[in-house]
Amino acid sequence: MNARTGKVICNLTVSVDGYAAGLRQTEDRPFGDDGADGTGALLHAWMFDTPEENRAEVEQMTEAGAFLMGRNMFGPVRGAWDRPWNGWWGDDPPFHAPVFVLTHHPRDPQPMDGGTTFHFVTDGIRSALERARAAAGDGDVSILGGATTANQYLSAGLVDELRLHIAPFTLGAGTRLFDGVPGMRLEQLRVRAASLVTHVTYRVVR
Amino acid sequence: MNARTGKVICNLTVSVDGYAAGLRQTEDRPFGDDGADGTGALLHAWMFDTPEENRAEVEQMTEAGAFLMGRNMFGPVRGAWDRPWNGWWGDDPPFHAPVFVLTHHPRDPQPMDGGTTFHFVTDGIRSALERARAAAGDGDVSILGGATTANQYLSAGLVDELRLHIAPFTLGAGTRLFDGVPGMRLEQLRVRAASLVTHVTYRVVR
Repeated sequence: MNARTGKVICNLTVSVDGYAAGLRQTEDRPFGDDGADGTGALLHAWMFDTPEENRAEVEQMTEAGAFLMGRNMFGPVRGAWDRPWNGWWGDDPPFHAPVFVLTHHPRDPQPMDGGTTFHFVTDGIRSALERARAAAGDGDVSILGGATTANQYLSAGLVDELRLHIAPFTLGAGTRLFDGVPGMRLEQLRVRAASLVTHVTYRVVR
Repeated sequence: MNARTGKVICNLTVSVDGYAAGLRQTEDRPFGDDGADGTGALLHAWMFDTPEENRAEVEQMTEAGAFLMGRNMFGPVRGAWDRPWNGWWGDDPPFHAPVFVLTHHPRDPQPMDGGTTFHFVTDGIRSALERARAAAGDGDVSILGGATTANQYLSAGLVDELRLHIAPFTLGAGTRLFDGVPGMRLEQLRVRAASLVTHVTYRVVR
């Protein structure tokens, strides 16, 4: 009895040259040298400067049954969890569902307001995906990034759908989606352009 | 008196991970290991399998006043011109205008039917662009590839517009557009999706 209908979706904003973040990420500049003097403005301008135009894509991004992300997307703390950090998203993160954070450093689950709980997974991407699938039930599992995490899931053949939000600039350096990922056939499902972004959705063909 | 109105346009088909050609290009497989068992089918399927859908983009690709390409796009001959080779496009190539081929090996101009003449330029990308601009008059100059040639012009800041035709697959290896090219701000001018491709046009912001 396999009632699961949810997909594993990779949901990333990238520059035209495929970078999901620039070099030198810091707490003040979570996307590093991102071409906008470190403010994050260029990569995510479509979300913050033109939210009305992109309401459907933003909502769709947070409607999964469970989420996965890498530790560097969760925050700037490296190594042991030696200072308080509960993500970039305030007390009531927009996920309203379990979020599984890949890390090498154990940490107790961190419940937040609004139904989001951050779970810290130390035994690898497959274990994290299993837990996310179980938590999502029939819902989708959304891999939010960063590119390093997405690339691990893509390389392992565990992604069903790619939703890319292509921002109109190139970075030239940083963390690049598809780096080291073997070639894949894709089916182009949807394309929609807004003023500061092109949204493209591909199904991974197996 | 500067009457020039033409633009320098970079016109390339790329995979979703940014490759314009795969590894191991040969005469039988001009795009190398391109994810379609070496037939070139995946990268350029939009041109050959669905020409009606993409008539506007194909016509626009060949309507410039002059063209530029790298020697590896022109053909598989490497080193000296030690055997006859007049391009992949038959006796009447679709350019109907001067085509400037970057090479280290001098060769006399090669006139073809229909107004195309291949000129071989051995003194660098700026010289080739000057000659192409002079030949184009008020028309555009179109850089057709490969990615190595496009990257040289992009790095030198000599490109006004990027027209990318994004094919729905990833290659994982090959010759990648933007490799080594510093970051650029772009303005998203046009996006159009057809069944096997997404056409995006960006203006390079200076």
